[in-house]
Amino acid sequence: MKPLILITNDDGVQSRGLQHLASLAKEFGEVVVMAPDRNASGVSVSITCTRPLRVKTVSEEEGLAIYACDGTPADCIKMGVEYFCSRKPTLVLSGINYGSNASINVVYSGTIGAVLEACLDGYQAIGFSLLNHNPQADFNACTQVIRHILQQVMQNPLPTGTALNVNIPRLPTDQIKGIRICRQAPAAWVDSLEKRTDPIGRPYWWMTGKFVCNNPGEDTDEYALAHGYASVVPIRPDYTDYAALNQIKHFES
Amino acid sequence: MKPLILITNDDGVQSRGLQHLASLAKEFGEVVVMAPDRNASGVSVSITCTRPLRVKTVSEEEGLAIYACDGTPADCIKMGVEYFCSRKPTLVLSGINYGSNASINVVYSGTIGAVLEACLDGYQAIGFSLLNHNPQADFNACTQVIRHILQQVMQNPLPTGTALNVNIPRLPTDQIKGIRICRQAPAAWVDSLEKRTDPIGRPYWWMTGKFVCNNPGEDTDEYALAHGYASVVPIRPDYTDYAALNQIKHFES
Repeated sequence: MKPLILITNDDGVQSRGLQHLASLAKEFGEVVVMAPDRNASGVSVSITCTRPLRVKTVSEEEGLAIYACDGTPADCIKMGVEYFCSRKPTLVLSGINYGSNASINVVYSGTIGAVLEACLDGYQAIGFSLLNHNPQADFNACTQVIRHILQQVMQNPLPTGTALNVNIPRLPTDQIKGIRICRQAPAAWVDSLEKRTDPIGRPYWWMTGKFVCNNPGEDTDEYALAHGYASVVPIRPDYTDYAALNQIKHFES
Repeated sequence: MKPLILITNDDGVQSRGLQHLASLAKEFGEVVVMAPDRNASGVSVSITCTRPLRVKTVSEEEGLAIYACDGTPADCIKMGVEYFCSRKPTLVLSGINYGSNASINVVYSGTIGAVLEACLDGYQAIGFSLLNHNPQADFNACTQVIRHILQQVMQNPLPTGTALNVNIPRLPTDQIKGIRICRQAPAAWVDSLEKRTDPIGRPYWWMTGKFVCNNPGEDTDEYALAHGYASVVPIRPDYTDYAALNQIKHFES
């Protein structure tokens, strides 16, 4: 039996990035897409607890079924594996996201929220993002990197409990120098909210901000991407700061 | 000048848990509350990018100002520090949450989402949760643990980049045995979605699920809580799986 691959994203089921990822995944197995019915960027690992969820069938063809859910990317993973996959998926993919999920963007990303959810549920999971927010972004430039990574994972499963956050630079295929394994670059978003005044004089605020990542180490995703490489960061949904466990031992009572 | 303490939560500005935390924090400094104007449980580190945010003044008294924002807990942190704190907060607190944020609940929690946001922004941040979902929960049982931790942090700042996830067992004060520094227990939520049928025959799904944490290690938060201790897990917004960096080196090309 062919491997089953579940795919979601946070840009919504109509996204060209999702469609490109699904067409690549079809080379490796049967594909089920369960994606948000609208843009769900910035929702992190949100789950929907206060209202019920609905699912619409978009299309059901041989080897590729596409469903839209009115929940978050993490909801889509739970929904997909519990009700729309005929067997346990071999692999869960998320993306291809419009724009970077490198460095601390990983924290806010719905794309990576889905990856963390799938990892918690015991699946091999990979998020893909292209550093291009343009609606006409050329996702073909991602093909070589994604095929390489899918081939690797199909041959050698990921370590248990580890997922991957893959970011691809905004370059033509022949200018992407290769793939680098990296750690998440430390960075900050500053001046996050812009204050404006509405026509009747009341204040409101828009999320905006400037990404500041000064001198990322050579082993980070930001460094790799800035130097023409695709970055692969192994991630896991364990937020423990192991290095700090001893440093705060004096809190015990 | 007194230390400034910014407080948020995910249960909403009206929460008794938030009020109890604010009253304790007032013992240590001037308090600004910027909390969601409604329940925002399960929203993780979500930020609001697709619509503008609004803020309402709830009350402004000497040493305690309370504001409600129509965004997420992470939005509240950005809003609070950028526009409603007269100076840099010494400390950012979140909670007291109704119900556990131990183990993998940390991933979904809006309470901890705010803590991770504050940590990314360079602040000392602590999330507090009581293992009690009852609307009549007795938050007085948290007082001793929270005071102890606030005293510690005021005397010795947290390691740079480290935040705390504090969970308090559902026990009378005199039965809480103490405080333990722990790692996050591995666990799973299973059977997450319950399928139902609406009056006109269409399916819908409710988020539910069963928390499964078999044999948590003795150094985990679940173990500490099950044995009558408050758990303190040092956390940080770096999702890199450092142990896996070498294991997946063969992905490079």
